[in-house]
Amino acid sequence: MNFCSHCGQPVTLRVPEGDQRPRHVCTACGTIHYQNPRIVAGCVPEHEGRILLCRRAIEPRRGYWTIPAGFMENGETTQDAARRESMEEALADVEIGSLLAIVHVLHANQVQVMFRARLPRPEYGAGAESLESVLCTEDEIPWQDLAFRSVDFALRRYLEDRRDGVDRHHFMALDLRPAAH
Amino acid sequence: MNFCSHCGQPVTLRVPEGDQRPRHVCTACGTIHYQNPRIVAGCVPEHEGRILLCRRAIEPRRGYWTIPAGFMENGETTQDAARRESMEEALADVEIGSLLAIVHVLHANQVQVMFRARLPRPEYGAGAESLESVLCTEDEIPWQDLAFRSVDFALRRYLEDRRDGVDRHHFMALDLRPAAH
Repeated sequence: MNFCSHCGQPVTLRVPEGDQRPRHVCTACGTIHYQNPRIVAGCVPEHEGRILLCRRAIEPRRGYWTIPAGFMENGETTQDAARRESMEEALADVEIGSLLAIVHVLHANQVQVMFRARLPRPEYGAGAESLESVLCTEDEIPWQDLAFRSVDFALRRYLEDRRDGVDRHHFMALDLRPAAH
Repeated sequence: MNFCSHCGQPVTLRVPEGDQRPRHVCTACGTIHYQNPRIVAGCVPEHEGRILLCRRAIEPRRGYWTIPAGFMENGETTQDAARRESMEEALADVEIGSLLAIVHVLHANQVQVMFRARLPRPEYGAGAESLESVLCTEDEIPWQDLAFRSVDFALRRYLEDRRDGVDRHHFMALDLRPAAH
Protein backbone atom coordinates (compact mmCIF):
# COMPACT_ATOMS: atom_id res chain seq x y z
CA MET A 1 0.00 0.00 0.00
CA ASN A 2 1.49 3.30 -1.19
CA PHE A 3 -1.45 5.68 -1.49
CA CYS A 4 -4.61 6.50 0.44
CA SER A 5 -7.62 4.86 -1.18
CA HIS A 6 -9.80 7.68 0.16
CA CYS A 7 -7.92 10.82 -1.04
CA GLY A 8 -5.11 9.51 -3.27
CA GLN A 9 -2.22 11.04 -1.30
CA PRO A 10 0.80 9.03 -0.03
CA VAL A 11 0.50 6.88 3.09
CA THR A 12 3.18 6.33 5.71
CA LEU A 13 3.66 3.34 8.00
CA ARG A 14 3.40 4.39 11.66
CA VAL A 15 1.78 3.45 14.96
CA PRO A 16 -1.34 5.62 15.41
CA GLU A 17 -2.01 7.16 18.82
CA GLY A 18 -3.58 4.62 21.16
CA ASP A 19 -2.58 1.73 18.90
CA GLN A 20 0.18 -0.87 19.30
CA ARG A 21 0.86 -1.76 15.68
CA PRO A 22 2.18 0.08 12.63
CA ARG A 23 -0.58 0.96 10.18
CA HIS A 24 -0.73 2.63 6.81
CA VAL A 25 -1.84 6.18 7.67
CA CYS A 26 -2.60 8.87 5.09
CA THR A 27 -0.21 11.84 5.26
CA ALA A 28 -2.97 14.15 4.00
CA CYS A 29 -6.39 13.12 5.36
CA GLY A 30 -5.20 10.94 8.27
CA THR A 31 -7.27 7.89 7.34
CA ILE A 32 -5.92 4.73 8.98
CA HIS A 33 -5.93 1.75 6.61
CA TYR A 34 -6.18 -1.45 8.62
CA GLN A 35 -5.17 -4.76 7.07
CA ASN A 36 -6.84 -7.89 8.39
CA PRO A 37 -6.89 -11.60 7.63
CA ARG A 38 -9.15 -12.78 4.85
CA ILE A 39 -11.45 -15.77 5.06
CA VAL A 40 -11.22 -18.70 2.68
CA ALA A 41 -14.29 -20.92 2.78
CA GLY A 42 -14.36 -24.44 1.43
CA CYS A 43 -15.83 -27.89 1.82
CA VAL A 44 -15.23 -31.61 1.44
CA PRO A 45 -18.10 -32.77 -0.78
CA GLU A 46 -19.00 -36.45 -0.55
CA HIS A 47 -21.10 -38.54 -2.92
CA GLU A 48 -21.79 -42.15 -1.91
CA GLY A 49 -18.54 -42.39 0.01
CA ARG A 50 -16.37 -40.73 -2.62
CA ILE A 51 -14.86 -37.27 -2.26
CA LEU A 52 -14.86 -34.52 -4.84
CA LEU A 53 -11.46 -33.01 -5.60
CA CYS A 54 -10.43 -30.40 -8.15
CA ARG A 55 -7.12 -29.98 -9.95
CA ARG A 56 -6.05 -26.34 -9.93
CA ALA A 57 -5.82 -24.48 -13.25
CA ILE A 58 -4.30 -21.41 -11.61
CA GLU A 59 -1.29 -20.45 -9.53
CA PRO A 60 -0.32 -20.99 -6.83
CA ARG A 61 0.04 -24.76 -7.12
CA ARG A 62 -1.33 -25.13 -10.62
CA GLY A 63 -1.86 -28.82 -11.47
CA TYR A 64 -2.21 -29.90 -7.84
CA TRP A 65 -5.34 -31.15 -6.14
CA THR A 66 -7.58 -29.30 -3.75
CA ILE A 67 -11.06 -29.21 -2.29
CA PRO A 68 -13.42 -26.50 -3.55
CA ALA A 69 -12.50 -23.34 -1.61
CA GLY A 70 -11.96 -19.65 -2.15
CA PHE A 71 -12.17 -16.16 -0.76
CA MET A 72 -15.39 -15.29 0.99
CA GLU A 73 -17.29 -12.31 -0.42
CA ASN A 74 -19.12 -9.55 1.40
CA GLY A 75 -22.81 -10.29 1.89
CA GLU A 76 -22.57 -14.05 2.26
CA THR A 77 -22.10 -16.52 5.09
CA THR A 78 -19.15 -18.92 5.24
CA GLN A 79 -21.57 -21.68 4.23
CA ASP A 80 -22.82 -19.61 1.28
CA ALA A 81 -19.22 -19.05 0.23
CA ALA A 82 -18.28 -22.73 0.45
CA ARG A 83 -21.32 -23.67 -1.63
CA ARG A 84 -20.61 -20.96 -4.22
CA GLU A 85 -16.99 -22.06 -4.55
CA SER A 86 -18.08 -25.66 -5.14
CA MET A 87 -20.28 -24.45 -7.95
CA GLU A 88 -17.62 -22.17 -9.44
CA GLU A 89 -14.67 -24.54 -9.20
CA ALA A 90 -16.31 -27.95 -9.62
CA LEU A 91 -19.73 -27.12 -11.13
CA ALA A 92 -21.07 -29.07 -8.15
CA ASP A 93 -24.30 -28.20 -6.37
CA VAL A 94 -23.51 -29.26 -2.81
CA GLU A 95 -25.37 -29.17 0.50
CA ILE A 96 -23.14 -27.72 3.20
CA GLY A 97 -23.05 -29.69 6.45
CA SER A 98 -21.20 -29.35 9.74
CA LEU A 99 -18.03 -27.42 10.49
CA LEU A 100 -14.95 -29.53 9.81
CA ALA A 101 -11.90 -27.30 10.32
CA ILE A 102 -10.62 -23.82 10.92
CA VAL A 103 -7.06 -23.41 9.70
CA HIS A 104 -5.10 -20.26 10.45
CA VAL A 105 -2.58 -19.73 7.66
CA LEU A 106 -0.44 -17.13 9.39
CA HIS A 107 2.03 -16.52 6.57
CA ALA A 108 -0.79 -15.77 4.16
CA ASN A 109 -3.05 -13.82 6.56
CA GLN A 110 -5.87 -16.26 5.91
CA VAL A 111 -8.42 -18.03 8.05
CA GLN A 112 -9.69 -21.08 6.20
CA VAL A 113 -13.11 -22.37 7.26
CA MET A 114 -13.94 -25.83 5.93
CA PHE A 115 -17.24 -27.70 6.10
CA ARG A 116 -18.44 -31.18 5.41
CA ALA A 117 -20.75 -31.29 2.39
CA ARG A 118 -22.95 -33.67 0.47
CA LEU A 119 -23.07 -33.90 -3.30
CA PRO A 120 -26.54 -35.36 -3.86
CA ARG A 121 -26.01 -36.22 -7.54
CA PRO A 122 -22.71 -37.24 -9.21
CA GLU A 123 -22.76 -34.13 -11.40
CA TYR A 124 -19.63 -32.04 -11.53
CA GLY A 125 -17.04 -30.63 -13.89
CA ALA A 126 -14.22 -28.16 -14.27
CA GLY A 127 -14.89 -24.50 -13.55
CA ALA A 128 -12.68 -21.72 -14.90
CA GLU A 129 -10.12 -22.20 -12.13
CA SER A 130 -9.95 -26.01 -12.42
CA LEU A 131 -8.39 -28.38 -14.95
CA GLU A 132 -10.66 -31.24 -13.89
CA SER A 133 -12.72 -32.58 -11.00
CA VAL A 134 -12.97 -36.18 -9.85
CA LEU A 135 -14.78 -38.28 -7.27
CA CYS A 136 -12.15 -40.27 -5.32
CA THR A 137 -12.45 -43.16 -2.94
CA GLU A 138 -10.32 -42.81 0.18
CA ASP A 139 -7.61 -44.98 -1.43
CA GLU A 140 -7.53 -42.85 -4.56
CA ILE A 141 -6.80 -39.51 -2.86
CA PRO A 142 -3.55 -38.12 -4.37
CA TRP A 143 -1.89 -37.35 -1.03
CA GLN A 144 1.47 -36.55 -2.66
CA ASP A 145 -0.12 -34.10 -5.05
CA LEU A 146 -2.35 -32.03 -2.81
CA ALA A 147 -2.04 -28.28 -3.33
CA PHE A 148 -1.87 -27.13 0.28
CA ARG A 149 -1.17 -28.47 3.77
CA SER A 150 -4.55 -27.14 4.90
CA VAL A 151 -6.23 -29.40 2.33
CA ASP A 152 -4.25 -32.39 3.60
CA PHE A 153 -5.32 -31.52 7.15
CA ALA A 154 -8.99 -31.15 6.24
CA LEU A 155 -9.10 -34.41 4.29
CA ARG A 156 -7.34 -36.42 7.01
CA ARG A 157 -9.62 -35.10 9.74
CA TYR A 158 -12.65 -35.70 7.53
CA LEU A 159 -11.74 -39.34 6.94
CA GLU A 160 -10.83 -39.99 10.58
CA ASP A 161 -14.10 -38.54 11.79
CA ARG A 162 -16.06 -40.48 9.17
CA ARG A 163 -14.39 -43.68 10.34
CA ASP A 164 -15.26 -42.79 13.95
CA GLY A 165 -18.81 -41.80 13.02
CA VAL A 166 -18.50 -38.32 14.56
CA ASP A 167 -18.71 -34.73 13.33
CA ARG A 168 -15.92 -32.98 15.19
CA HIS A 169 -14.32 -29.68 14.26
CA HIS A 170 -10.58 -29.12 14.27
CA PHE A 171 -8.29 -26.14 14.61
CA MET A 172 -4.82 -25.77 13.16
CA ALA A 173 -2.28 -23.00 12.69
CA LEU A 174 0.25 -23.05 9.85
CA ASP A 175 3.15 -20.63 10.10
CA LEU A 176 5.78 -20.46 7.38
CA ARG A 177 6.88 -16.92 8.21
CA PRO A 178 10.62 -16.31 8.55
CA ALA A 179 11.73 -17.19 12.09
CA ALA A 180 12.81 -13.60 12.78
CA HIS A 181 9.21 -12.46 12.58
CA MET B 1 -12.60 3.66 -2.13
CA ASN B 2 -11.74 6.41 -4.63
CA PHE B 3 -8.08 5.88 -5.45
CA CYS B 4 -5.74 2.98 -6.12
CA SER B 5 -3.66 2.19 -3.03
CA HIS B 6 -0.91 0.89 -5.28
CA CYS B 7 -0.42 3.78 -7.75
CA GLY B 8 -2.63 6.60 -6.43
CA GLN B 9 -4.75 7.01 -9.57
CA PRO B 10 -8.59 6.94 -9.57
CA VAL B 11 -10.44 3.62 -9.38
CA THR B 12 -13.65 2.72 -11.13
CA LEU B 13 -16.30 0.21 -10.09
CA ARG B 14 -16.70 -2.50 -12.72
CA VAL B 15 -16.94 -6.27 -13.18
CA PRO B 16 -13.47 -7.55 -14.16
CA GLU B 17 -13.22 -10.13 -16.94
CA GLY B 18 -14.00 -13.61 -15.62
CA ASP B 19 -15.56 -12.21 -12.46
CA GLN B 20 -19.22 -11.93 -11.45
CA ARG B 21 -19.11 -8.97 -9.09
CA PRO B 22 -18.27 -5.28 -9.40
CA ARG B 23 -14.85 -4.47 -7.97
CA HIS B 24 -12.82 -1.32 -7.54
CA VAL B 25 -10.37 -1.47 -10.46
CA CYS B 26 -7.58 1.04 -11.03
CA THR B 27 -7.99 3.08 -14.22
CA ALA B 28 -4.20 3.37 -14.57
CA CYS B 29 -2.44 0.20 -13.39
CA GLY B 30 -5.43 -2.18 -13.51
CA THR B 31 -5.04 -3.48 -9.95
CA ILE B 32 -8.27 -5.06 -8.69
CA HIS B 33 -9.05 -4.12 -5.10
CA TYR B 34 -11.13 -6.85 -3.49
CA GLN B 35 -13.18 -6.14 -0.38
CA ASN B 36 -13.86 -9.04 1.96
CA PRO B 37 -15.50 -9.61 5.32
CA ARG B 38 -13.43 -8.94 8.40
CA ILE B 39 -13.21 -11.24 11.38
CA VAL B 40 -14.17 -10.15 14.88
CA ALA B 41 -12.87 -12.52 17.56
CA GLY B 42 -14.22 -12.58 21.09
CA CYS B 43 -14.94 -14.75 24.10
CA VAL B 44 -17.22 -15.31 27.06
CA PRO B 45 -14.82 -15.37 30.04
CA GLU B 46 -16.08 -17.17 33.13
CA HIS B 47 -14.74 -17.03 36.68
CA GLU B 48 -16.36 -19.32 39.27
CA GLY B 49 -19.67 -19.27 37.45
CA ARG B 50 -19.74 -15.53 36.79
CA ILE B 51 -19.28 -13.95 33.37
CA LEU B 52 -17.05 -11.02 32.53
CA LEU B 53 -18.76 -8.19 30.65
CA CYS B 54 -17.44 -4.79 29.56
CA ARG B 55 -19.32 -1.53 29.12
CA ARG B 56 -18.29 0.16 25.90
CA ALA B 57 -16.48 3.51 26.05
CA ILE B 58 -16.62 3.96 22.28
CA GLU B 59 -19.17 4.13 19.52
CA PRO B 60 -21.08 2.33 18.21
CA ARG B 61 -23.22 1.53 21.24
CA ARG B 62 -21.23 3.52 23.80
CA GLY B 63 -22.43 2.75 27.34
CA TYR B 64 -23.84 -0.68 26.41
CA TRP B 65 -22.53 -4.04 27.55
CA THR B 66 -20.53 -6.50 25.52
CA ILE B 67 -18.15 -9.42 25.78
CA PRO B 68 -14.48 -8.78 25.01
CA ALA B 69 -14.19 -8.85 21.20
CA GLY B 70 -12.55 -6.98 18.37
CA PHE B 71 -11.02 -7.11 14.93
CA MET B 72 -8.54 -9.88 14.33
CA GLU B 73 -5.04 -8.79 13.30
CA ASN B 74 -2.72 -10.31 10.73
CA GLY B 75 -0.31 -12.84 12.22
CA GLU B 76 -2.56 -14.20 14.94
CA THR B 77 -5.10 -16.99 15.30
CA THR B 78 -8.73 -16.34 16.22
CA GLN B 79 -7.91 -17.65 19.70
CA ASP B 80 -4.93 -15.29 19.96
CA ALA B 81 -7.18 -12.42 18.93
CA ALA B 82 -9.90 -13.28 21.46
CA ARG B 83 -7.30 -13.48 24.23
CA ARG B 84 -5.68 -10.20 23.20
CA GLU B 85 -9.02 -8.42 23.11
CA SER B 86 -9.82 -9.65 26.63
CA MET B 87 -6.56 -8.14 27.81
CA GLU B 88 -7.05 -4.89 25.93
CA GLU B 89 -10.70 -4.30 26.76
CA ALA B 90 -11.02 -5.87 30.21
CA LEU B 91 -7.39 -6.18 31.40
CA ALA B 92 -8.25 -9.85 31.81
CA ASP B 93 -5.77 -12.66 31.23
CA VAL B 94 -8.06 -15.43 29.98
CA GLU B 95 -7.56 -19.00 28.77
CA ILE B 96 -9.43 -19.57 25.53
CA GLY B 97 -11.55 -22.71 25.37
CA SER B 98 -13.89 -24.27 22.84
CA LEU B 99 -15.65 -22.64 19.92
CA LEU B 100 -18.99 -21.16 20.99
CA ALA B 101 -20.42 -19.30 18.00
CA ILE B 102 -19.85 -18.03 14.50
CA VAL B 103 -22.11 -15.09 13.70
CA HIS B 104 -22.27 -13.68 10.20
CA VAL B 105 -23.15 -9.99 10.42
CA LEU B 106 -24.05 -9.45 6.81
CA HIS B 107 -24.84 -5.73 6.99
CA ALA B 108 -21.42 -5.03 8.54
CA ASN B 109 -19.38 -7.50 6.44
CA GLN B 110 -18.18 -9.20 9.60
CA VAL B 111 -17.72 -12.78 10.70
CA GLN B 112 -17.70 -12.93 14.47
CA VAL B 113 -15.97 -15.93 16.02
CA MET B 114 -16.67 -16.39 19.73
CA PHE B 115 -15.06 -18.82 22.16
CA ARG B 116 -15.67 -19.99 25.68
CA ALA B 117 -12.94 -18.79 28.03
CA ARG B 118 -11.81 -19.15 31.63
CA LEU B 119 -10.66 -16.27 33.79
CA PRO B 120 -8.46 -18.07 36.33
CA ARG B 121 -8.17 -15.14 38.76
CA PRO B 122 -10.82 -12.44 39.38
CA GLU B 123 -8.51 -9.73 38.08
CA TYR B 124 -9.89 -7.37 35.47
CA GLY B 125 -10.47 -3.70 34.78
CA ALA B 126 -11.36 -1.15 32.13
CA GLY B 127 -9.13 -0.93 29.06
CA ALA B 128 -9.07 2.16 26.86
CA GLU B 129 -12.22 1.13 24.99
CA SER B 130 -14.24 0.23 28.11
CA LEU B 131 -15.91 2.31 30.82
CA GLU B 132 -15.89 -0.60 33.27
CA SER B 133 -15.85 -4.39 33.49
CA VAL B 134 -17.86 -6.57 35.84
CA LEU B 135 -18.31 -10.23 36.74
CA CYS B 136 -22.04 -11.05 36.51
CA THR B 137 -24.04 -14.02 37.68
CA GLU B 138 -26.52 -15.31 35.11
CA ASP B 139 -29.30 -13.31 36.81
CA GLU B 140 -27.32 -10.10 36.71
CA ILE B 141 -26.69 -10.03 32.95
CA PRO B 142 -28.10 -6.71 31.61
CA TRP B 143 -30.07 -8.27 28.73
CA GLN B 144 -31.81 -5.00 27.91
CA ASP B 145 -28.54 -3.12 27.69
CA LEU B 146 -26.40 -5.41 25.57
CA ALA B 147 -24.54 -3.66 22.77
CA PHE B 148 -25.22 -6.09 19.93
CA ARG B 149 -27.53 -8.92 18.97
CA SER B 150 -24.52 -11.15 18.39
CA VAL B 151 -23.54 -10.68 22.04
CA ASP B 152 -27.06 -11.61 23.14
CA PHE B 153 -26.86 -14.73 20.95
CA ALA B 154 -23.45 -15.77 22.27
CA LEU B 155 -24.44 -15.31 25.91
CA ARG B 156 -27.73 -17.20 25.56
CA ARG B 157 -26.08 -20.14 23.81
CA TYR B 158 -23.29 -20.11 26.37
CA LEU B 159 -25.69 -20.32 29.29
CA GLU B 160 -27.90 -22.95 27.64
CA ASP B 161 -24.90 -25.15 26.89
CA ARG B 162 -23.52 -24.69 30.39
CA ARG B 163 -26.89 -25.78 31.81
CA ASP B 164 -26.85 -28.81 29.53
CA GLY B 165 -23.21 -29.58 30.31
CA VAL B 166 -22.15 -29.55 26.66
CA ASP B 167 -19.75 -27.55 24.49
CA ARG B 168 -21.66 -27.05 21.27
CA HIS B 169 -20.96 -24.46 18.62
CA HIS B 170 -23.66 -22.36 16.99
CA PHE B 171 -24.06 -20.49 13.73
CA MET B 172 -26.20 -17.45 13.11
CA ALA B 173 -26.65 -14.89 10.34
CA LEU B 174 -27.80 -11.35 11.06
CA ASP B 175 -28.94 -9.29 8.11
CA LEU B 176 -30.10 -5.72 8.56
CA ARG B 177 -29.42 -4.70 4.96
CA PRO B 178 -32.17 -2.88 3.09
CA ALA B 179 -34.64 -5.38 1.61
CA ALA B 180 -33.88 -4.27 -1.96
CA HIS B 181 -30.35 -5.64 -1.63
